[in-house]
Order: sequence, then structure tokens, then C-alpha cells
Amino acid sequence: MARQNEGNPRTSDKTIGRLSLYRRLLNVLQGEGHRHVFSHQLAGIAGCTAAQVRRDLMAVGYSGSPIHGYEVVRLIESIREFLDAPGGQGVALVGVGNLGKAILAYFTGRRPNLRIVAAFDNDAHKVNRVIHGCHCHAMADLPQVVKKLGIRLAIITVPANAAQEVAEGLSRVGVRGLLNFAPVRLRVPPNVYVEDIDMTMSLEKVAYFARLAGAEKEGKP
Amino acid sequence: MARQNEGNPRTSDKTIGRLSLYRRLLNVLQGEGHRHVFSHQLAGIAGCTAAQVRRDLMAVGYSGSPIHGYEVVRLIESIREFLDAPGGQGVALVGVGNLGKAILAYFTGRRPNLRIVAAFDNDAHKVNRVIHGCHCHAMADLPQVVKKLGIRLAIITVPANAAQEVAEGLSRVGVRGLLNFAPVRLRVPPNVYVEDIDMTMSLEKVAYFARLAGAEKEGKP
Repeated sequence: MARQNEGNPRTSDKTIGRLSLYRRLLNVLQGEGHRHVFSHQLAGIAGCTAAQVRRDLMAVGYSGSPIHGYEVVRLIESIREFLDAPGGQGVALVGVGNLGKAILAYFTGRRPNLRIVAAFDNDAHKVNRVIHGCHCHAMADLPQVVKKLGIRLAIITVPANAAQEVAEGLSRVGVRGLLNFAPVRLRVPPNVYVEDIDMTMSLEKVAYFARLAGAEKEGKP
Repeated sequence: MARQNEGNPRTSDKTIGRLSLYRRLLNVLQGEGHRHVFSHQLAGIAGCTAAQVRRDLMAVGYSGSPIHGYEVVRLIESIREFLDAPGGQGVALVGVGNLGKAILAYFTGRRPNLRIVAAFDNDAHKVNRVIHGCHCHAMADLPQVVKKLGIRLAIITVPANAAQEVAEGLSRVGVRGLLNFAPVRLRVPPNVYVEDIDMTMSLEKVAYFARLAGAEKEGKP
């Protein structure tokens, strides 16, 4: 089990995403007093197939019973053991503008296991202040703060033209995972994992396809 | 051209996303004084191949010259004609909690063409107040406000257990595009386009793969 907790290299990006989703759905079910759940029920709320749920849950090494399904408490625990680092992981946030502040507010208290432990900005008005419970450091202090706190994860919320330099700086001091909100594709060493969230792109896609649906309804091509 | 502006049903979701990205990169290049750009340059900053860029740009109907590449101004204009609704599109935001407020702050003034024109919440302390420049209405008034303003797009920032009902309500009153931040897979009619952004899932994926990179480095499986 300890080895499995270190991560199975064959577990795909999509499976990890769904495990994270299942856990949140399971927490809701637990809150509603459910003690057991079947793969087809999880599939229904997660929007995938029951076979997919069973394959994903095989990765965490807990199999349910054909009669009672999965025990909710044990399944949450198995996913936790698989996904989470035993002592939790500290996260750095770089760029405390509108978006950075929003992300700080959103994650504060949400995931004790994934806590934003340091924020960084160039703005002298923000440096050495506590913003949404998080100390904001000067960009120049990033290398020593990241090393001192043993930070391996960072959220990038700087403007597009600063993101590549920030990503390189973080990679140099041992950060191995980046959640990037800047609208650029970052070039990073192969041992650094990047996940992009581009809210403007997402909204523009929604706008385009909503318009298309309208045009189709009205008989336009 | 008018027909093409209504959207080409064969243009994929991924192409639309990249066109949105190219436009922002082109705006940066324009700001830096560049007048021409080659497909391989756009590919370099967008993180795809030059052939991909050329295929994507064929969709907008503007082809560059083999000698000078694409004219930056004309390419921005062509993408605008293809992606944007002529008079702009109003957006509703449902759920003015921490995340909703953050999204309001982020999009305010960012895209005049995609403006959040109405927010909705159940909380009496928020209703009839202006939050980040946007009027917050009661949930009960959603149908008439959405119809009156002709809103076709909405951002869902309510808690997970409320999202499905909100999505159904929005679909019933003519909304055709949803940007969903709630961690659930929404079931909507086939003429409604949904794009999901799940920030917690994304951060958990980054944490998992960052830990894996660390384990591999230290010789663990």
C-alpha cells in the first residue's frame, strides 16, 4: 500500500481527475447519510459508465461487494490514501492580482491537505501583507521561501507575458506541479506536470457554441 | 462570410479553444509592435505545430502569404468576425459566493464582448446589491431577467448540490451555453453546450503527479 501511495505511473491523468470527482461526490453522499454506493450510482452522478467507475476504483485497490456495492467510508479512505500525500502538500501562489486573490479566497480552508502556504507578488503594497490568510512575499524571495517550506506545487496567476519566466524559476527550485491560469502554453522540464485553466478561452468556447445552437435552431447552417 | 460568422458546425471544440488563444497571443504581439507573424511563430508560443495553426486559421477564412506570413491586424479581425457575436453576448452568473465574486471580479472589463450583465443569488444580503459592477437579482427573478435581457450564456458558481437544478432552470429559459464551476457533471438538453472548470480537481491532479515526479526522482515506483 505504501508504494501504491507513491503513485502508480500507469494511472492516467483522466483517472486521477475522476478519483478526485468521486471523492467529492462520496463526501456529499456521506453527508446525506448513505453508507453504501454502487458503481452505477457513482457513474450516474459523475457522468460516466459503471465499468469506468469500477476500472478507476481498481486503481485505488478497494473493491466493493456485488451485493452491497462499495462502503462509502472505506472508499473515501482508500481514495484519500491513494491521492493525498500523508502529511499534506503546501502550495505556492504566484501573482496576487484579481485572479490570484480570487483563487486564494476560493482555496482557503477548502482542502486542509492542499493548503496555499505562501503567495508572491512584485507589488510593494502587497508584499509582507496577509491576504486571505496567506502571507505575501516579494518575488525576489521566492527561491528561499519555496526551498525553506519544501514547496513542490504552485499556482500561476501572473499575466501572460510573465508566466514562462515564473514557471522556469519555480522549476529551478524544485516545484514539480503547476496549475497555470495564464493564457500561455508553458515550456517546462519533463519532470514538471502542468495543468492549464484558461477561463477566458472556456467562456469564449461556450459563447461560440451557444451561438451555433441558436443559429441551428433558426435553420441557419 | 455572414454564414461563416454564424459558426461552422464542423469546427471542433479544440479549434475554437485555440482560436481564442491565438487571438490573445496576437493581441500581445500587436502591443509589442509586430505587424506580421508566421504560423511557426504562433505555434511556438501556443505549444502546437505550424500545420495545426494553419489548419485552424483556414476555419476563419484568412490565409497569410508565404513570404510575409499573416498580417497581425487582419488576423485578429478575422478571428473576431468568426468567434464573436456582432453585438456582443450578455452573460448571467448564478451563485455569488466566494468563487462567484472572484469570477465577477476577473471578467469585469476584460471582454466587452462577453459581459456579465446579471448575477443571481438566494442570499437576501446580496440581492439588489451591485457586486463588482454587476446587479445581483433574486433567484426567483431569474426567468424574467434572463428572458428580458435575451441572455444565452451563463456561468454556474453555485454549490455542487444546487448545480443540476440551476442548469435545468437556465436551459428552460433559453440559455444555450454553460460554463460550469460546480464539481458535478450536468445533464442538459442536447442543444445546450457545457464547459466544465473544476479547480479543486485540477489542483488535486497537479498534486498527485508532482508527488509521482518526486517519487520517481528518488527511485520509488
